[in-house]
Amino acid sequence: MTIKIGQVGLGRLGRVHAENIVHHLPNAELYAVASVVPEELDYAKHTLGVPYTYTSYSQMINNDALDAVVIVSPSGFHTVQITQALDKGLHVFSEKPLGLEMTSIQKVVEKIEATPQQVFQLGFMRRFDDSYRYAKQLVDQGELGALTTIRCYGIDPSEGLPSFIKFAKGAASGGIFLDMSIHDIDLIRWFTQSEFKSVYALGHNIAAPELNACQELETGACLAELNNGVIAYLLAGRNAHHGYHVETELIGTKGMIRIGNAPEKNLVTLYDANGVVRPTSTHFPERFKAAFVNELRAFIDAIKTQAPASVTGIDGLKSTEVAIAMQQAYETKSIIQL
Amino acid sequence: MTIKIGQVGLGRLGRVHAENIVHHLPNAELYAVASVVPEELDYAKHTLGVPYTYTSYSQMINNDALDAVVIVSPSGFHTVQITQALDKGLHVFSEKPLGLEMTSIQKVVEKIEATPQQVFQLGFMRRFDDSYRYAKQLVDQGELGALTTIRCYGIDPSEGLPSFIKFAKGAASGGIFLDMSIHDIDLIRWFTQSEFKSVYALGHNIAAPELNACQELETGACLAELNNGVIAYLLAGRNAHHGYHVETELIGTKGMIRIGNAPEKNLVTLYDANGVVRPTSTHFPERFKAAFVNELRAFIDAIKTQAPASVTGIDGLKSTEVAIAMQQAYETKSIIQL
Amino acid sequence: MTIKIGQVGLGRLGRVHAENIVHHLPNAELYAVASVVPEELDYAKHTLGVPYTYTSYSQMINNDALDAVVIVSPSGFHTVQITQALDKGLHVFSEKPLGLEMTSIQKVVEKIEATPQQVFQLGFMRRFDDSYRYAKQLVDQGELGALTTIRCYGIDPSEGLPSFIKFAKGAASGGIFLDMSIHDIDLIRWFTQSEFKSVYALGHNIAAPELNACQELETGACLAELNNGVIAYLLAGRNAHHGYHVETELIGTKGMIRIGNAPEKNLVTLYDANGVVRPTSTHFPERFKAAFVNELRAFIDAIKTQAPASVTGIDGLKSTEVAIAMQQAYETKSIIQL
Amino acid sequence: MTIKIGQVGLGRLGRVHAENIVHHLPNAELYAVASVVPEELDYAKHTLGVPYTYTSYSQMINNDALDAVVIVSPSGFHTVQITQALDKGLHVFSEKPLGLEMTSIQKVVEKIEATPQQVFQLGFMRRFDDSYRYAKQLVDQGELGALTTIRCYGIDPSEGLPSFIKFAKGAASGGIFLDMSIHDIDLIRWFTQSEFKSVYALGHNIAAPELNACQELETGACLAELNNGVIAYLLAGRNAHHGYHVETELIGTKGMIRIGNAPEKNLVTLYDANGVVRPTSTHFPERFKAAFVNELRAFIDAIKTQAPASVTGIDGLKSTEVAIAMQQAYETKSIIQL
Repeated sequence: MTIKIGQVGLGRLGRVHAENIVHHLPNAELYAVASVVPEELDYAKHTLGVPYTYTSYSQMINNDALDAVVIVSPSGFHTVQITQALDKGLHVFSEKPLGLEMTSIQKVVEKIEATPQQVFQLGFMRRFDDSYRYAKQLVDQGELGALTTIRCYGIDPSEGLPSFIKFAKGAASGGIFLDMSIHDIDLIRWFTQSEFKSVYALGHNIAAPELNACQELETGACLAELNNGVIAYLLAGRNAHHGYHVETELIGTKGMIRIGNAPEKNLVTLYDANGVVRPTSTHFPERFKAAFVNELRAFIDAIKTQAPASVTGIDGLKSTEVAIAMQQAYETKSIIQL
Repeated sequence: MTIKIGQVGLGRLGRVHAENIVHHLPNAELYAVASVVPEELDYAKHTLGVPYTYTSYSQMINNDALDAVVIVSPSGFHTVQITQALDKGLHVFSEKPLGLEMTSIQKVVEKIEATPQQVFQLGFMRRFDDSYRYAKQLVDQGELGALTTIRCYGIDPSEGLPSFIKFAKGAASGGIFLDMSIHDIDLIRWFTQSEFKSVYALGHNIAAPELNACQELETGACLAELNNGVIAYLLAGRNAHHGYHVETELIGTKGMIRIGNAPEKNLVTLYDANGVVRPTSTHFPERFKAAFVNELRAFIDAIKTQAPASVTGIDGLKSTEVAIAMQQAYETKSIIQL
Repeated sequence: MTIKIGQVGLGRLGRVHAENIVHHLPNAELYAVASVVPEELDYAKHTLGVPYTYTSYSQMINNDALDAVVIVSPSGFHTVQITQALDKGLHVFSEKPLGLEMTSIQKVVEKIEATPQQVFQLGFMRRFDDSYRYAKQLVDQGELGALTTIRCYGIDPSEGLPSFIKFAKGAASGGIFLDMSIHDIDLIRWFTQSEFKSVYALGHNIAAPELNACQELETGACLAELNNGVIAYLLAGRNAHHGYHVETELIGTKGMIRIGNAPEKNLVTLYDANGVVRPTSTHFPERFKAAFVNELRAFIDAIKTQAPASVTGIDGLKSTEVAIAMQQAYETKSIIQL
Repeated sequence: MTIKIGQVGLGRLGRVHAENIVHHLPNAELYAVASVVPEELDYAKHTLGVPYTYTSYSQMINNDALDAVVIVSPSGFHTVQITQALDKGLHVFSEKPLGLEMTSIQKVVEKIEATPQQVFQLGFMRRFDDSYRYAKQLVDQGELGALTTIRCYGIDPSEGLPSFIKFAKGAASGGIFLDMSIHDIDLIRWFTQSEFKSVYALGHNIAAPELNACQELETGACLAELNNGVIAYLLAGRNAHHGYHVETELIGTKGMIRIGNAPEKNLVTLYDANGVVRPTSTHFPERFKAAFVNELRAFIDAIKTQAPASVTGIDGLKSTEVAIAMQQAYETKSIIQL
């Protein structure tokens, strides 16, 4: 049985998902696509060979042949589109975040929980990366003992900074913690199996003073405490000159692990006039190339085996809650209890 | 159009290919399988859902629905099976080596060249590995200047040594150079675009004295000169305690590259009582996981686009010729000119 | 002219200094030693060949042949011994911290500043480590642009944890921030040339619950802001299984540097059953072996050239002040403004 | 007792030794210097404060206050100057090579062996490098099992290539194997405690065609067999763009070690537009800074304790013999048996 998928949104990340469905998932078919951008529908029809294209999400999900939707639209649409799809009886894969404010998120989570026979999966792809899965296995096997301290870095490449500045002048990202740290919050919850207790945050725009006027941050840093006592440090930034720096450090009573100490592109080392150089991943589609395939494969497998997905609505709700608290801590210069 | 594939052989590497076709190649279908091992046919039928299974290769290729064959049988069968498939008008992907001795290899290469409308591809998967492709691109762009010296290591994990010793007592591998160095010979030809001029080789069984009685080597080393003056050092071994060590070093007039300086498993680093540890790939299916998918994807793409494959019969012939000369150099303790 | 040195204290670090004076500093002579431990005096006399030994510091500094003192006594004695030596007209090298509470520290700093013709140097040896000096040079040359974020780790090897627990039951270390983070505070001040503005700190004893009863911490973490806007994260710990982990990360607008990403022991890499392993420095005398020599060489050179030392009393005062604020932030669970 | 040293030669390496004696060896005194270059004597007298300077080696060793000589003159003078110093009853430290041809080397070795009460030490400083000593200890403890294969790289930085080309036009270096591989030959003998049995060598000047006219090589490579069966590969070159690349790989039946996989300058890692970069040692005085001090310290200690030095005349003789055989193998394009 091939799972027929309708996808909304074909921006940068949308194309990653669409191409993965077409080229890497024999059990899935990209059956329909919805977008308000004509070029995206052209691309879907002519490059990817998608049979049905729509300018409206509502119309697309009326196509009765569909089994599932993949939502890669702007964050503000997520809760509504998830709800509509669930109402239609469709399985749903949605990009993070689940939503932008807590009330609608809580409602959509209730909806998700009320339809357990429909698979719902949130796009925290890092959990599907080989390195993160390997680390998770070590942690769960007790190789590190009890976790004591976690450090999570998510720093976007500097080459994207100018376009972010342009974007920030016109629209709100939700703040650096909701926009970027949310992945790290999810990882911390996943690794520790504990919830955040308190957060304190700092931020600045030394590297991009233009952002001060947009109420955005180039760098945000947070020191947090979890319910089980683990201390977490989260750093989000938009100015890594060496590429796309996502790093997680797990310290336990028995040892320490770093995932992505350096975001090595591959197994090549250059020995040249610069010294001994490891080339790096330069953007998220490269760094998490396999993880994006893996997460959709897991979604398809969950549908086929009628199993629940591993990343749930609750994961989306909890991580958003923490990100919002971080933003508040930064804005009020105070320690926020959760 | 889905390419219907018949595969012969479902041993360790055979299963890698079969599972890749089933799980990773939407444009291909594993339509038939041939094997003399009942368990392998069971696995194909029940685990992979292959529609047709045969105990005979000849019978399988009589299935007129087939578009292509994937040959993963013992090396001694390759030339005959390639010829039969080409005679049936099928596209052919064959594992290396092309064959075990030069006369039949030359004939099969003539055959391959006489049917240019049928895609023939040899299984030198390293050329399809991201790290090797990245290095090849740097070399072709001239980043290293003119190549001067190459070092190629292919060292199998020690955990496979006992089973190799057992195997070697009953059968001939063709010698370590034909069995293992052939991948490195191909890489050297690929990177330098030049042919081997002379080879000198040494070998020993310090790590596995039992192999002396089998006329096999645990370690073989070769110093070679290419027609364009490049010096190459090849080391093949069967006793790497840290995993599967495939490494290539390219020195050019402008810089140096190492591919696989350490066969890092992923981006995880452990900091524990041993020191700072990078876990390693422990066998070829792990190290070249993506390369195995990529090479079959390239084969399918070549069929669909009616383009020639990038790894040809000539590549198989030339590399075998060099490997045989290395073995001869080792046996005669002399420098062999090609 | 050979500088005649009297040293007080021959514990672990004391012996490092004493042996460096004897074996590595041609322009200095370890002329006298004071200790209340008979074995230490024996060692000085018989192993190191020190001419004069004393059971009293006051007696030692009455030896008129002395040019300088090296103070490696317990922290509580520092301010008094520095004052006495300065009164005698001696040059003074003192181990950190300058003292344990602010009033006496302020007085001794006044004293130091009142005798500018006598060299006073505090034992922040990291500033004299080749790696740190190299990084400082890059920062000062502007290679990183403006600094934005700093991360400092100081984690002692786990093998020392049992003896610290034993020690903590009987005596106060001053707390982990004063005992350990002080080196990192100094580095941050040195690299940024700015002062701390606010600190917030967390701590726990997950890895050593026995320390709860001693009001000590195994792990302490601090998120701080500097006057120039730089964000700093400091982590101090006592349980690194891989050795002695001192690491500093400097992020600037133009790039990032890590010093001691891994505390590599030397240039050896092991490829064994554990993977690819870099052996590590296992304690401070190993990691900062050359730095300890360099700092005393700098002290001797300052005396000989009548130049001021590069690590001053003010550096001791400021770093202590910050460390005390961190401890207070931890104890009161609040953000402390400096 | 301070050892009074007379040194001949104050070129690049000569200054390294002279400054080490003056600044790092409290038990030694640089008492006299001989050189035909007036600037070198000026430097000795005024910068280093050496009491006696001579334009003639013979005159210098007539200074009866001397205990030992350090010979850093051109290689052609070594055998004569060693002999003269031994005749005067002096202890001798001589730079490598012992000499340029076997007859005079054999004679000087006989002389050395005839005066066992006088310490003679040859300047194979790599044996005194911390990384090499650590590796040697692991090997001697059996951590690698029996050695099976060794790889030794000695590649000079490209920035020195133009001056070598200029030098090569006027004078003979003895060939790349005698000039450079000799250090690696010594290491192989030291690690294996076995002697060379056969050598085969190749070479080219792809990176420096001007050297063809000088009968010199930019790159020389050798595949050798030792009496105990160990296979060794030696690569010498003069064109490393990343710095001074000295690397040794030891493969044993139980594991593998690399010393200097990358010639890391220190513990700093840069994360910049180039990727993740380890800065490198750019020349031998930097890479072997501590080894040069250590070897002279060992020499002084041997004199003081009346113990034999660890690097003997025989080590010089044997390594020269092998280097000459390599050169012959290259020139005759044949395998040379030793």
